[in-house]
Amino acid sequence: MPSDEFIVTPWHVEGEIDYDKLIKQFGTEKITPDVLKKIEKTTGETHFMLRRGVFFSHRELVRILDDYQKGKKFFLYTGRGPSGHTHIGHLVPWVFTKWLQEKFDTNLYFQLTDDEKFYAKQDLTLEQTSKFAYENALDFIALGFKPEKTKIIINTKNIKTLYPIAAQVAKKINFSNTKAVFGFTGETNIGMIFYTSLQSAPCFIEDRPVLIPLGVDQDPHFRVTRDVAPKIGREKPALIHNIMIPSLSGPGGKMSASEESGTIYTTDSPEMIKKKINKYAFSGGQATVEDHRKIGGNPDIDVSYQYLRIFFEPDDKKLKTIYDDYKSGKMLTGELKAILIEKVTEFLVAHQQRREKAKDQIEKFLYQDQ
Amino acid sequence: MPSDEFIVTPWHVEGEIDYDKLIKQFGTEKITPDVLKKIEKTTGETHFMLRRGVFFSHRELVRILDDYQKGKKFFLYTGRGPSGHTHIGHLVPWVFTKWLQEKFDTNLYFQLTDDEKFYAKQDLTLEQTSKFAYENALDFIALGFKPEKTKIIINTKNIKTLYPIAAQVAKKINFSNTKAVFGFTGETNIGMIFYTSLQSAPCFIEDRPVLIPLGVDQDPHFRVTRDVAPKIGREKPALIHNIMIPSLSGPGGKMSASEESGTIYTTDSPEMIKKKINKYAFSGGQATVEDHRKIGGNPDIDVSYQYLRIFFEPDDKKLKTIYDDYKSGKMLTGELKAILIEKVTEFLVAHQQRREKAKDQIEKFLYQDQ
Repeated sequence: MPSDEFIVTPWHVEGEIDYDKLIKQFGTEKITPDVLKKIEKTTGETHFMLRRGVFFSHRELVRILDDYQKGKKFFLYTGRGPSGHTHIGHLVPWVFTKWLQEKFDTNLYFQLTDDEKFYAKQDLTLEQTSKFAYENALDFIALGFKPEKTKIIINTKNIKTLYPIAAQVAKKINFSNTKAVFGFTGETNIGMIFYTSLQSAPCFIEDRPVLIPLGVDQDPHFRVTRDVAPKIGREKPALIHNIMIPSLSGPGGKMSASEESGTIYTTDSPEMIKKKINKYAFSGGQATVEDHRKIGGNPDIDVSYQYLRIFFEPDDKKLKTIYDDYKSGKMLTGELKAILIEKVTEFLVAHQQRREKAKDQIEKFLYQDQ
Repeated sequence: MPSDEFIVTPWHVEGEIDYDKLIKQFGTEKITPDVLKKIEKTTGETHFMLRRGVFFSHRELVRILDDYQKGKKFFLYTGRGPSGHTHIGHLVPWVFTKWLQEKFDTNLYFQLTDDEKFYAKQDLTLEQTSKFAYENALDFIALGFKPEKTKIIINTKNIKTLYPIAAQVAKKINFSNTKAVFGFTGETNIGMIFYTSLQSAPCFIEDRPVLIPLGVDQDPHFRVTRDVAPKIGREKPALIHNIMIPSLSGPGGKMSASEESGTIYTTDSPEMIKKKINKYAFSGGQATVEDHRKIGGNPDIDVSYQYLRIFFEPDDKKLKTIYDDYKSGKMLTGELKAILIEKVTEFLVAHQQRREKAKDQIEKFLYQDQ
């Protein structure tokens, strides 16, 4: 892979992603100022993740918004592949989804694909992925969703609901389709080949349009779903894509639940947060204080700054000050890291308390098969 | 396809099958007189379907029998793809399975693969195959199974039990395997590709060895299962195969639930039975009564005789008399057909009464997911 190229698939992200190129490659639409205005017109405000391009691309979001304004409601669907503990990168689309749910007053389905991760990872057992599904669900609930409007689907637990829908989808997808979209080969296991139809299934769980906030790496699944939808007499799902959240160790790839040092988990203690950020967070600063004061830092590649931009500093003014100060050299890398450490610690200490309480709430959130 | 060749796959049977050749092709073992003796030693008798070669082939049946004699119990598993109404050909393995269940006092699982037939048949909906599953279940129950030891699994209804087992199997099968065994191509839908793992799942539903009585056309599925079993730490399923039951219209192919004129359904009235046999049953007789008296008939290709041999005349002596009389020309085709019509009518009139009662019993037979 040449250094200016990148790979984005549901199971592998590599290289420094050029998101404008990716939009062309995937055939999605950019979230333009016009689209932002349309959202603002409907919701009264835009979320900072929209303003800052954390959500940067979509498919038919405009149709969903236009229909909504005409009184046609939609529902939301997102999810997570439980291959490990939750890290702060996972929370990005979930927090944004919560905002959408509140602004549009919609039902939300959150799918935990324990089967997918079992199929995809040679060493994981189904017991392990199911356990991670439960752990991940606690983090999701801790964000403050309302159980009346929010249901968690765990694939192996809710397969009775999912399978008949997945079967309708699966009948319309052939092996060549999955080869073209996912790069599957003769070596791919048949669970993996079938799996995409189970990720499609929640799109059709209610008889109304669906909007899916998701990491752009998951787009290929729904490209397939969108091809199938009219063949089974259903509306195509609309999508809104977020960028890949960088690993602590720097841009290129995404934060991974299995790469411990590059990852801040939601269960990390304040000491671990401090240590990880100070030790591993990729810096855009200069090698010496003198150089830094003279040349200034580069916030655009600095992971601490990026985390503030993507998630931890919702206040645009404060963020701009940090940006300017770091760029000018007024703010040192250690100071920038200290800000992030404080923000992450404050967030996670409160999150961990809500996460404990979630253990008593989880039953109310689990989708019940009929 | 040259006229001396044949095709046997789970979804297509064509040509006149040479069962000795098929045993070599599939790599199964013939049921020899020694195997028959071993069965007789354990059960006290042999079933006429064994003596007459209706069950003609096996995989590791001897291991199951040896283990049984050492006190290691097994369970039985068979099934049906509900693509239409039940016909008398379907009853062959079910009646034999009932005999096995009684002789070996085992649990039995009967799988109705409504999803498979939905994937395989372009025009069938899942609602239709699920309805056929219910219809087929009534015929199964009507044969007199005991609900305490006999459970009916309907794939879409019991997917919660099946899917986690199927997932273990699916992870060990790749697309190339299914291509080699089933002849799948890039055009095959992904439901179909995954499906074999769901047909494997009941093999591992209890933690003891399984014996599967089945039509030999279904052998490829379990060839795959047998490859996978040791990889997931389980014993290979043992199999006992029956021949394909010929269509009324003659040898070559098998009786099909979708070919109306060649098929006697379990719900046919006495008038329909009479009409179908008289009109369509392929005859081994001569063109004129004179020739028939002189040359004699050929019971080996006569479908009426074959039905008596395979299912409707358990008495070996009576069957031999019919064989000899027809072959010598003493018995005319009309007389042979009259015997079959009487036997089939007698059987189905009683069956239909039990089938009505089965509607009240079905709940007791349905497998309950945990």
